[in-house]
Formats: sequence, structure tokens, C-alpha cells
Amino acid sequence: MAPSAVTPAGIEPASALTAAAVSQKLNGSAPTLRPLDASKLTFSRTTAPMAVPELDDPIIKTSSQGTDHMITCKWTDTSGWEAPELRPYGNLSLAPTASVLHYSTECFEGMKLYRGYDGKLRLFRPDANCMRMLISATRISLPAFDPEQLEILIKQLVAIDGEKWLPKSRPGHFLYLRPAMIGSGAGLGVGAPKEATLFVIAIFMPVIGSSPQGMKLLASRENEVRAWLNGTGYAKIGGNYGPTLMANSEAQSRGYDQILWLYGEDARVTEAGASNFFVVWRTREGKLQMTTAPLGDKIILDGVTRRSILQLSRERLADGTSGLEAIEVVERNFTMGDVAEAISEGRMVEAFAAGTAYFVCPVSEINFKNQALSIPMAGGESGEYAAMIKQWLVNIMYGKEDHEFGIVVEEKNEL
Amino acid sequence: MAPSAVTPAGIEPASALTAAAVSQKLNGSAPTLRPLDASKLTFSRTTAPMAVPELDDPIIKTSSQGTDHMITCKWTDTSGWEAPELRPYGNLSLAPTASVLHYSTECFEGMKLYRGYDGKLRLFRPDANCMRMLISATRISLPAFDPEQLEILIKQLVAIDGEKWLPKSRPGHFLYLRPAMIGSGAGLGVGAPKEATLFVIAIFMPVIGSSPQGMKLLASRENEVRAWLNGTGYAKIGGNYGPTLMANSEAQSRGYDQILWLYGEDARVTEAGASNFFVVWRTREGKLQMTTAPLGDKIILDGVTRRSILQLSRERLADGTSGLEAIEVVERNFTMGDVAEAISEGRMVEAFAAGTAYFVCPVSEINFKNQALSIPMAGGESGEYAAMIKQWLVNIMYGKEDHEFGIVVEEKNEL
Repeated sequence: MAPSAVTPAGIEPASALTAAAVSQKLNGSAPTLRPLDASKLTFSRTTAPMAVPELDDPIIKTSSQGTDHMITCKWTDTSGWEAPELRPYGNLSLAPTASVLHYSTECFEGMKLYRGYDGKLRLFRPDANCMRMLISATRISLPAFDPEQLEILIKQLVAIDGEKWLPKSRPGHFLYLRPAMIGSGAGLGVGAPKEATLFVIAIFMPVIGSSPQGMKLLASRENEVRAWLNGTGYAKIGGNYGPTLMANSEAQSRGYDQILWLYGEDARVTEAGASNFFVVWRTREGKLQMTTAPLGDKIILDGVTRRSILQLSRERLADGTSGLEAIEVVERNFTMGDVAEAISEGRMVEAFAAGTAYFVCPVSEINFKNQALSIPMAGGESGEYAAMIKQWLVNIMYGKEDHEFGIVVEEKNEL
Repeated sequence: MAPSAVTPAGIEPASALTAAAVSQKLNGSAPTLRPLDASKLTFSRTTAPMAVPELDDPIIKTSSQGTDHMITCKWTDTSGWEAPELRPYGNLSLAPTASVLHYSTECFEGMKLYRGYDGKLRLFRPDANCMRMLISATRISLPAFDPEQLEILIKQLVAIDGEKWLPKSRPGHFLYLRPAMIGSGAGLGVGAPKEATLFVIAIFMPVIGSSPQGMKLLASRENEVRAWLNGTGYAKIGGNYGPTLMANSEAQSRGYDQILWLYGEDARVTEAGASNFFVVWRTREGKLQMTTAPLGDKIILDGVTRRSILQLSRERLADGTSGLEAIEVVERNFTMGDVAEAISEGRMVEAFAAGTAYFVCPVSEINFKNQALSIPMAGGESGEYAAMIKQWLVNIMYGKEDHEFGIVVEEKNEL
């Protein structure tokens, strides 16, 4: 039976999560609740400013060193959003019955703040992250918000902390930004959270995934699955991550960097660790293609880096003017069988993972059913397409190329 | 290819989570780490004792009122388990980078403490909950522990708080116990938690699910799924709950109590809300059967109430001596098609949901593909089998029947 027959006419199942459903949630159900309003931000400067770690400080490897301040904002189902606060970085106090601790009512975003070679601070497509966070929040029954207001709050935090924590003396470096929302109210009932807390923190994070040997991936086995049809793979919610850690630990103990997540009996290739996955290969007809899994099944994350790579590659690699052979960019399902065949027939050109944390990361090997499949890396540390794409993104992020993806943030180290 | 060919010989994939894998995790990897040791429990009595709510206090409906004390115990990957603490009930302080807030590194148990009509306090099969918590913790990359030590800690908490918070003047009442474990260490890296916190709280919870009209279930639609083959449906981890809240809210807004979770193209019946689901029906050959979904696919939770109902029914309903017609107890997959046919052919006898929170809850209606299917309730508020089973359990829980499932807890209101 068609889904339309299952639901009363005119009611879109909330799980469809179309733009319309999000918009309905945003505007429809509770018009009397206060919306998220960045203009109401209150400021309370820390009285115990921390020291900025040196670039070789081991604390950076722990991904736990924040900056002096954070943004927090509370929501209740009776009043809506309170005034957001910029306040000293510090612990959150949660009732032991808080929803997030039991039912995984949590979602997040991963972004970076870049210190440009021109001295400016930039974000990369923050609008895309804020929109995705709204989709994730809606999926996990956390409250909706205007994504533009979240973007303003993020900019406020980095405007205040950027100068000290990502100084002009560190061009080419970044801080990791983590907007997150959690079900923070007390109460063990299994139901949509009655209270939520949005927070934004800026964290030191090591450069990861850029080994000169390339990334080695362990393909998931038949008894392992990350996401599934009609599930939540497309949303950036905690429940997509915790269950993958066991396979991940096992991969690392066997000398691999990440799991390559396969799906279904035909072993469709979906994601690499917490990144999207791309192959560059030649069809049997001799056509050069860059291929990544499609979004339609909602199994993979709609990565901002993924989306940007697709757009830039379509713009810049279609006609051969880049200096590299022209390439066709394709979003479609493909299987480990396809990958193995392309390798054995000499048609695999390169492969790479792409995401905010791992950035653009060449892949040199995939272990599939206990066989090591080698991926070419153009004889060096990266395939040529991955290297070119990475350079485009670096140029945009660090101000070497003026591009609409790179958003300059004004700094104002005064409250 | 068989799974054994995918993994090096002799290495069981951790995801198989057999008893052997759990045991290996418990004993194998880090023998120098301190084990969880209930005998090291420290006591610090509250200096601000709270008032016990009256039975009609609206706070009970919020499932947020704890007792005076809680158990907490910290684990680190460098030292293992610290000494557990019995300490005043209160908030947990977590770094905003804590693993549990982002990656859903969390698991829990649901149990009840019963005040018997004989004046004694009892737990119901606490060993089963503690063993399942170990399985859940292992699956979500939280540390292992000896489940017997957790059981001792739970008993210590209720021994101290039971007399005041579930007084002898309230026979037939219960407190809800929630053991839980979370990834509590600071650090945003996507990896197994380096620090964890185990805690146990006792909470007032309303009696739910016992409407005289019976429970009304909305069958999940084709675009909704709770758990999947080779996924985590069998583990009591947060990530199995948050994603279901959206469908649940929609069900409630349409007048249903819970979602009946179906699985696969053949619409297999799995769980009702966060409970297991049973039908009592007659085969076309005239045999009376009680049927519930099997555990083999690891899609459903291995419920303690489920397991107990199966065992008691096999012991007491097989030969007709119960006063009700003899019944065969069957764990097998069945579909909504089977259910609809049995109803239309007059072979459905009754159906009920069963779990710790909802207890034994007769089902009167299932909405499947927008058709309301009525389930008989023996002309009253419950089918006869559900009523009898419920009474058996009540008798064991509240001390009217001496049975190995009912574990008496000694009370000692002194530290």
C-alpha cells in the first residue's frame, strides 16, 4: 500500500522529514513559544581566563581543551527558548534522570574555524551546518529553531574567543566548533524532551587522518551495520556513533584507521568511519568518473564537505581545464564488488574519505573479506584529484581564494 | 562467504557478543585494571533529606523524584573502577565534550523495587538485569564489570533508602530503579570512552499502561523502523530509544498509546513501544498458542518480564491445571498479516504488551495501514491469560507467592 494510504490524507508522516515537515515544526505547533533569538544574547566574561596551549601541547590530542567561553541556551516546552548566554566555558550540570543520558536525545554539528593566511577568521558554509542541525534536532525530537539564529550565535562565540585562541600568529590553523543540543530536563519517561539545552563550544583538535601512507579501511562484515533504510543514518545524532565504536576499536586494533561501512546483501559502499567516501575510477567504456553514494536512501550523512566537493568538481573538473583529465561526477550506489573489480582490472584511479574532521583523506587500502585491496595513490601521498580538491578547499578556508563558501567572521574581543 | 572466513581464525568478531565475548572483555584485555568491587563502597549520608511525596503528588507523574541517595562509580581506562560511592542524590557534572552528550555512549536498565504485602522489600530477578546491562555496556563500548557486583550495589542503595521512601505503610507499591552507565570523560574524539560513570538511582514513577480500555497500538509504517538485523535492538542503549520518540509522539497525538514496531517487507511484529509483545491465538488446526517474537535475530530486547512470562506459562499453562485451557508457548516470527487473518477469522484470543515499566498490559486495538483491528479482551478489561499471568507476577513481586524470581532485600537504615 502506498504511504499516502497509511496516513490520514494531507498529513505528512513526521518521519518523512521533508523541508515542509521541518518548516511545519518550526512554525506550526506552538506559535506562542519564544523562538531562538540571537539578539537576546547575554554576555558574562570569564574571570579565570585559561592559557592558550602551544601547538605541540599534548592536551590538543585529547580534543578536550575549550576556549574561555561557550554559548548555552535553554528551551522548555512551556516557554520556548530563553535568552542565549555567552558564558565561561565549564561543565554542564544534569539531573541523573536527564533524557540525554538515557534515551540519546542529542544531536550535534562539526565545523571548523579557520585562521586565514590573510589574517582573517573564516567559517566554511556555516549555513549548511545550521540547517542540518535543525533536521537532526527534528529527527531526534529536540526543539526546532531558526538556523540563521544559530549561525549568528556561533559567530558571536568565535568573534569573542577567536583573537586569543586562534591568533593571527597561527595562520593555516583551525579550532573545531561543536554546536550540540541535548535533552536536559529531569524525568525518566520515554517521551519527547520537555527541556533542551543548546550549546556551542570551540575545541582544540589534532590534525587527523593525513598519514603519508594513506588511510587503511576495514570493510564492515555481514554482521555489522551502521545505518539502514528508513533509519537515521542521514541525521547527525549520537545514536549513529556510539554503536559504531566497537567495530572501530576492533579495526584500529588490527591496524586499520576506520571502518568502511557497507550496506545490504550486495555490500553497497556507504561511508568511511564518520566521513563520506569517494572513488575515482574508469568505467569499462573508458569514461573517468568520481563516484559517491547518493543521499536518497537517507543512509548516509549529507556531508558539507561532500556537498562542496561535488559542486566544485562539477564546476572545475568537467572540461579538463583544471590540468587533470576531465571527469564525470556521479552520485549513485556502488558495491564492494564494483570496487574490487575496478581494482583487479586496473580501472581504480584513487579513493578518498571526506568530512570536516578528517578533511580530504586519501585511501590506500581496503580490507574486504580478509583480502587487502590496494588503492593507487598516484605513486605518492595522495591521488591527484584528492590533492587538487583538498587544495581548492584549503584555499577557500584559509583565504587564498575568495569564494562564497568561505564566510569571514568579524572579531571583537570586547563584550 | 561464511563469517569465519572474514575474521582471522580463532578471533570471534566482538560484535557477535556471545557470552564468550563478554567474558573475554571482562577478563582478558586489561587484567591490571581494578574490577568493580562493591565491598569498597563508601557511604556519605545526605545532610538535606528530602520529603517523601504523597502518592497523589503530581511530581510522581514527572518520573523525576529521586530518593535521598544514589550510587555512583567512576571508571578510567588507565586504572579501572574506583571505589563506588553511596552519596546524596544530585546532579552530575559533565564536561560539554563528554562522550555521552555527543556519541550516545550510554546504557541502562529498568527494574522495580516492590514493597510486599508481607512488609518485605523485593527485587524481581535483579541478576537478569545486571547481566543484560553488562551485554549492553559491552555493545556500546563502555567498560565491563562483574554483574554480581552491580547487583550488590543496587541492593545497598535500596537497603538504605527503602524504609523511608517505600515505607511498610505502602504495600503493593514500587519504586523504579535505574542503573545506568555513561561515557563521562572529556574529549570529542569519536572513540571508545576513556572514562565512564556508573550510577544507580531510585525514582518515583506513575503506574502506566493499565487503562481499562486496553492499550491501543499504532503499527509502524513502511518508512519507520526501530531496529534491524545485525543492529543493536537487543541492547538497552540510548540510541534505540531517542529515534523512536518522533513516531511515538505522533502515535499519541493520534490517540494511540504506543507504536507497534514492525520489521521488514513482510511486516514482522517485534515490540510494542518499549515493551515485548504477545498474542494468544488459535491455529487453523485449533491449537491454542501464546506467541512472541524470537531473540535470535537480535532485533528485540531480551526482556526480563518476557523471559519470566515464557517460563511461567510453560510451567503452568501447558496442561490445563491452571483453570484455563492448556496453551502452547511459542517463540517465532509472525507478521501483521498473520495477526489480521487471525482476527478476521475469529482466531485471535487476546494480545498484551509486557515489560518492567508497562508491566502486563492488555491490547485492545492495533491500527495497521489505517485500519483499526480490534483485539478481544474477554469482554472486560483484560484477556484471561494476561490477567492470570499478571497475577502470578504480582504475587511473586509483592510477596504473596514465595518464588525464586522474588529476591528479598534486607533493610538497614544506618550507614
